[in-house]
Amino acid sequence: MNGSDRQAYDRGVSVFSPDGRLYQVEYAREAVRNGTAVVGVRGADGVVLAADARTPSPLLVDGSVEKLHDVDGRLGAATAGHVADGRRVVDFARRRAQTERLRYDQPVGVEPLATAVADHVQEATQAGGTRPFGAGLLVAGVDGNARAAGTGERPRLFEVDPSGSPSEWHATAIGGGADAAREHLEREYDPDVGPLGARNLALGALAATIDADGFAPSDVAVAVADADGYRSLDAGERASALDEAGVRAS
Amino acid sequence: MNGSDRQAYDRGVSVFSPDGRLYQVEYAREAVRNGTAVVGVRGADGVVLAADARTPSPLLVDGSVEKLHDVDGRLGAATAGHVADGRRVVDFARRRAQTERLRYDQPVGVEPLATAVADHVQEATQAGGTRPFGAGLLVAGVDGNARAAGTGERPRLFEVDPSGSPSEWHATAIGGGADAAREHLEREYDPDVGPLGARNLALGALAATIDADGFAPSDVAVAVADADGYRSLDAGERASALDEAGVRAS
Amino acid sequence: MNGSDRQAYDRGVSVFSPDGRLYQVEYAREAVRNGTAVVGVRGADGVVLAADARTPSPLLVDGSVEKLHDVDGRLGAATAGHVADGRRVVDFARRRAQTERLRYDQPVGVEPLATAVADHVQEATQAGGTRPFGAGLLVAGVDGNARAAGTGERPRLFEVDPSGSPSEWHATAIGGGADAAREHLEREYDPDVGPLGARNLALGALAATIDADGFAPSDVAVAVADADGYRSLDAGERASALDEAGVRAS
Amino acid sequence: MNGSDRQAYDRGVSVFSPDGRLYQVEYAREAVRNGTAVVGVRGADGVVLAADARTPSPLLVDGSVEKLHDVDGRLGAATAGHVADGRRVVDFARRRAQTERLRYDQPVGVEPLATAVADHVQEATQAGGTRPFGAGLLVAGVDGNARAAGTGERPRLFEVDPSGSPSEWHATAIGGGADAAREHLEREYDPDVGPLGARNLALGALAATIDADGFAPSDVAVAVADADGYRSLDAGERASALDEAGVRAS
Amino acid sequence: MNGSDRQAYDRGVSVFSPDGRLYQVEYAREAVRNGTAVVGVRGADGVVLAADARTPSPLLVDGSVEKLHDVDGRLGAATAGHVADGRRVVDFARRRAQTERLRYDQPVGVEPLATAVADHVQEATQAGGTRPFGAGLLVAGVDGNARAAGTGERPRLFEVDPSGSPSEWHATAIGGGADAAREHLEREYDPDVGPLGARNLALGALAATIDADGFAPSDVAVAVADADGYRSLDAGERASALDEAGVRAS
Amino acid sequence: MNGSDRQAYDRGVSVFSPDGRLYQVEYAREAVRNGTAVVGVRGADGVVLAADARTPSPLLVDGSVEKLHDVDGRLGAATAGHVADGRRVVDFARRRAQTERLRYDQPVGVEPLATAVADHVQEATQAGGTRPFGAGLLVAGVDGNARAAGTGERPRLFEVDPSGSPSEWHATAIGGGADAAREHLEREYDPDVGPLGARNLALGALAATIDADGFAPSDVAVAVADADGYRSLDAGERASALDEAGVRAS
Amino acid sequence: MNGSDRQAYDRGVSVFSPDGRLYQVEYAREAVRNGTAVVGVRGADGVVLAADARTPSPLLVDGSVEKLHDVDGRLGAATAGHVADGRRVVDFARRRAQTERLRYDQPVGVEPLATAVADHVQEATQAGGTRPFGAGLLVAGVDGNARAAGTGERPRLFEVDPSGSPSEWHATAIGGGADAAREHLEREYDPDVGPLGARNLALGALAATIDADGFAPSDVAVAVADADGYRSLDAGERASALDEAGVRAS
Repeated sequence: MNGSDRQAYDRGVSVFSPDGRLYQVEYAREAVRNGTAVVGVRGADGVVLAADARTPSPLLVDGSVEKLHDVDGRLGAATAGHVADGRRVVDFARRRAQTERLRYDQPVGVEPLATAVADHVQEATQAGGTRPFGAGLLVAGVDGNARAAGTGERPRLFEVDPSGSPSEWHATAIGGGADAAREHLEREYDPDVGPLGARNLALGALAATIDADGFAPSDVAVAVADADGYRSLDAGERASALDEAGVRAS
Repeated sequence: MNGSDRQAYDRGVSVFSPDGRLYQVEYAREAVRNGTAVVGVRGADGVVLAADARTPSPLLVDGSVEKLHDVDGRLGAATAGHVADGRRVVDFARRRAQTERLRYDQPVGVEPLATAVADHVQEATQAGGTRPFGAGLLVAGVDGNARAAGTGERPRLFEVDPSGSPSEWHATAIGGGADAAREHLEREYDPDVGPLGARNLALGALAATIDADGFAPSDVAVAVADADGYRSLDAGERASALDEAGVRAS
Repeated sequence: MNGSDRQAYDRGVSVFSPDGRLYQVEYAREAVRNGTAVVGVRGADGVVLAADARTPSPLLVDGSVEKLHDVDGRLGAATAGHVADGRRVVDFARRRAQTERLRYDQPVGVEPLATAVADHVQEATQAGGTRPFGAGLLVAGVDGNARAAGTGERPRLFEVDPSGSPSEWHATAIGGGADAAREHLEREYDPDVGPLGARNLALGALAATIDADGFAPSDVAVAVADADGYRSLDAGERASALDEAGVRAS
Repeated sequence: MNGSDRQAYDRGVSVFSPDGRLYQVEYAREAVRNGTAVVGVRGADGVVLAADARTPSPLLVDGSVEKLHDVDGRLGAATAGHVADGRRVVDFARRRAQTERLRYDQPVGVEPLATAVADHVQEATQAGGTRPFGAGLLVAGVDGNARAAGTGERPRLFEVDPSGSPSEWHATAIGGGADAAREHLEREYDPDVGPLGARNLALGALAATIDADGFAPSDVAVAVADADGYRSLDAGERASALDEAGVRAS
Repeated sequence: MNGSDRQAYDRGVSVFSPDGRLYQVEYAREAVRNGTAVVGVRGADGVVLAADARTPSPLLVDGSVEKLHDVDGRLGAATAGHVADGRRVVDFARRRAQTERLRYDQPVGVEPLATAVADHVQEATQAGGTRPFGAGLLVAGVDGNARAAGTGERPRLFEVDPSGSPSEWHATAIGGGADAAREHLEREYDPDVGPLGARNLALGALAATIDADGFAPSDVAVAVADADGYRSLDAGERASALDEAGVRAS
Repeated sequence: MNGSDRQAYDRGVSVFSPDGRLYQVEYAREAVRNGTAVVGVRGADGVVLAADARTPSPLLVDGSVEKLHDVDGRLGAATAGHVADGRRVVDFARRRAQTERLRYDQPVGVEPLATAVADHVQEATQAGGTRPFGAGLLVAGVDGNARAAGTGERPRLFEVDPSGSPSEWHATAIGGGADAAREHLEREYDPDVGPLGARNLALGALAATIDADGFAPSDVAVAVADADGYRSLDAGERASALDEAGVRAS
Repeated sequence: MNGSDRQAYDRGVSVFSPDGRLYQVEYAREAVRNGTAVVGVRGADGVVLAADARTPSPLLVDGSVEKLHDVDGRLGAATAGHVADGRRVVDFARRRAQTERLRYDQPVGVEPLATAVADHVQEATQAGGTRPFGAGLLVAGVDGNARAAGTGERPRLFEVDPSGSPSEWHATAIGGGADAAREHLEREYDPDVGPLGARNLALGALAATIDADGFAPSDVAVAVADADGYRSLDAGERASALDEAGVRAS
């Protein structure tokens, strides 16, 4: 369809175009691509999340605009796209996890959480009176009995896109430059990768999304969700990780 | 009607065109055709569902974007079209089946479930403030007393399209390439087909929807709903099935 | 009014045109004409309903897309037009009949049911946030005390059109080709017609709506509502009926 | 105002045109004129209602599309215009009369009923989300203590138009050809007219609305609301009445 | 502003034009001018209301379309403009007066009633989903303790216009020809005018609004609100009044 | 922005223009300028409010269209712009003052009242389904313990504009000609001005808004809010005040 | 995108443009830039807020249009942009802080408050029926146990922009000229700056936003949030502060 024909269908959330597309959802995906990248890599024991956290001003406090989020226990999330929308989606995930904990006295599973978030996101694409969320989400975590750590842990990584469709990945990236990051991951991924390899892989993929030759420690956020819980790397750990991954800015 | 005249009627869910058509529903059908195909074949003892499950990336976990869904007991469903919409329709089917079970302490019948889903889908085509679901559904299952297996089982296969109209089929296909698949089914269908024949037929029809010469085991999803319940084939079973059907990619 | 002037008034359910017409209701009537025909004939003892039930594919289960519906006891209905809308209207009729039964412990009368359905259909033409139902309905049944069969039965046949206006008929047809069918009925109708004659008349009128020289037994649905209840003819009975009516496809 | 200027104001119920008119209400009046005529004549002892009840098909049951309605006790109504809308307005009148009876154990008066209906009709011209009713109404009845018949009866005749404005008449007509009927009534009306004279006057006025030289008995509906209640004339009575009024079709 | 520019702002109740005007309210005022005139004159002891009550047909019952309304006790109202809207505003005034009486066991004052009506009318100019009332209102009455007649009575006359703005007048007119009537009143008004003089003044002003040389008694409605209550003049009194005022049609 | 570009943004309350403006609010301010002026001057002991109260007709009762309003105790308000809107805003202020009194048994402060009114006005600029109020408000009063008069009184004067923004003034004017009045005030204001000086200053500023050489006593409204309460000047006092201020029409 | 293409997407809050942008949010940011500047600087012991508080008229009471707001205990806020919107956002913050205090008997933390405000602001960008808030906010305060002052205080400074995205800053500025102010801050900021240095830095940055060579004491508002609470500087303190910062107007 040409531009003026397309305009007839792309300004209302609730209508299909003649070729069966929902343009508003596609534009919300564009909003995700307008953000900086986040990467997720599932290793044998846990999931590593890494985010391009460069800030436009040195006056911004490091980590001020969070892209990686502690959701609940051994569950974390990474967001890309329209920042305020991403925060709302993460808030939904947190409330949902808390509800589950209060009701059943156990943590929510990674997949149930991802699909609950996806349902919430889908509703914004069909119900009147709202627009889609302009944010994508990676949900990472480890399933298994939290009260009996060590038994049956299983790391999992899900993506929820602005259409409200969940999908499970070995490793993936969303946001600006995600294509380059995914190419890197497809080339290098090994399902049996250990914690260190997963971190290197994630940071290598993240480096593929930028023009510079690498990151300073304050330019990235890195977190790990494994049997011990969800944990962010501090500045020192980030520096070592960038060195090990060979993507520390010179 | 020409394009500019049609535009006068096709952007609002709630209006008929002068020729008595609901364009938004027709565009939602187009969304179904934009998805990959799913096939259902009713044999003498059960219903086989098969789906084109090829993923765009090797990093996606196999079966991540589910096209075949375990609904309840001996009931399953296959979806084609807008993925997030399909998930919502399946969720509705599941909740409905659970409600029935809780209320009457017995499984919901295949036809009652299909018509309940169809009513839900129709509402989205008439009520204000929403758009049609851009997904088609095959509902497959076996009726009869689940607590007295072997007595009176009757396999049934229904389609629910985006207009909210249910229809019962011996065998059918929806999604991209469905016309080619239905031609294959019309040519080869035999109502007395056994489990094996139904599977071969379903995979043969599915192969007719793609350009390639066949599928790898990870490219398809296959499930059977019969008196023993709803069951997905694992990778090994899928490999054998593709071999037997003669549509394994070389 | 010419086309472009008419467009000013025909896209909103809630507005009259300067010549006092509701175009959306007229377009919904067009949706009824887009469907295949159904015929109703009131005989001395009961009402015969007949429907063009040809299916687009041999894979569709016979009778899958129901055009004749068992409503309650000695009440049935036939629908033409947008299939999903027709089902919703019949559902309304069924719920209404059940409510009446539960409340008063007796079957609802044919006329009260038809007018209740008509009210429901009219609301969709005046209230905001919805469109008219794109389906027409024939309501057929026998009044009288169901618990004292044989006393005071009175067969009745009503039409409810998309405007929500009910009307009572000796015999009528709606859907594609209904004009030809009604001409046939006007020519041949006899109020004292017996069960057999009513059936022949209905099938003859139905045959007038199609180009072919007759129907195969699987191409039609036939039902009778009389003092014994509502009953559909099986395949064998349909074959004999078509033979007797002289409209069996050669 | 010319056509294109008028279009700027006539498609929304809730807006006035610059010359202070509500076009949607005027178009709804046009819908009344599109219907066939009904006539009301108040005599000394009661009110006669007469309607052009010709049907488009001999297959329609006589009296199927009711234009005269038994409302409650000694109260009746006649409707002209959009049939489905007219039925809804009459339903409102009936419910209102029943409520009054239940609450106060006595029949509602003619004027209170007419004004209650008018309020209901006005609301549809001002509140959002609905369109005006495309039907006009004559409300006819006899006031006085129903339990002490013969004391203080007073026949009254009201019109409610689509604007929701009630007015009381000695005699009037609404619907197609109403102007001709009213001319007839103005020429011939006598307030002391007895039952027979009122009937003749009503049928004479009705005959003025059609091109033919008179009516067959099945072409008209006639009813009388007097101290004895509301009563419709049967076919034989209608034949005599047409003869006496000199407007029976030859 | 020229016409096409004005159209950009005059079709939505809720928007101001760039020059700070609410066009819909101005058009509703035009609807008032489209009606026939009503006049109010406050004399020393009471308020006289007079209305042009000419009817378009001799078949209309005299006083059928009421323009003067008994509101409550010593309170009356006159309406001009869109008849159905005027009735709704008067209904509001009556309900309000009753509520006051029930709550405080005393009649509502003239000013509190007029401002309550004005608030109700203003809401229709600002809230979404409705249009302004196309009717103007004169509220007339006598304040003071109704249970101690003769002490402190004070006649008052208020106008409520379609904007919902109340104003108090010695004498005024609204509706068609109101300008001419007000000119007459400005020329002739005397605040100490007695009952007879007030009546003459009101009828003289009313006569200024029409082309004819005077009114027949059935052409006008006249009412007085004074310490004795609200009372309409009967036909004989109206004849004398017209004679005395010198405006009886010859 | 030129006119046609501006039209794209100025008809919906809820949207910003590309240059970050809310045109509807600006047009509502224009509605304030369309009204006649009101002036407020805060003196050492109280606040004087003065309004241009000229009426278009001698038949209007003096003070009929109130521009100065007694709100509660020692609180008053002046309104300019769309009269009906101004009354609603004052009603809100009164209800709010009463609520405060009932809840805490003490008068509401001037500033809390002004900000509560401002919040109410702001809501009408952001919430859907309504338009801004086309009226500006001056809120005048004296804070301090009303039950211990003489201790800590502090006169205050606030303006609330159609955007819902409150501001405190030593002296100001709103409505038609407000610029000229404010120039007069800036030239002449003295914070230690006594009651008489404040009155002279207010009337002088008011005179600057009109073309005539002064006011008749019936042309103005003047009120004072001080420790003794809120009080309007009667006709005699107004005559003296105009004389003293040197702005009595010759 | 060029202007006319952009207009297709920028008038509805709920839609994305094809390039994934929310134009209404961007226009709301423009509304912030249309206001005068506010600056926040976090020092070692507290946060300094400074605002350009110049008023357009000498008749406005100093500090009348508040730009710095006492929120609760040791929490303050600064607003820039559409004044009425800013007040509503601050009101929300105050209510939220009070709720927290009532529920948990302790002050709300700076970050929880900023994110709660951000959520509220984001909702206005996605839900139907409202527009974004045209105001930006700086939230400043000191965390720690208020009942055990001196232990663990930690000054923090957050910005909430019209998209509803919160961010933490060492120092920042919003409103007109914010770019120049931020350049000043980036050049001069030192995290260990003491109270005096922070004040000088804030006023210096503020001076960079205006054309004049400095401020008069009445032209600025300055406040400090530290362990002792939130406190505004009086006129004398402001004079000294401007002198010390070297930005007092000569």
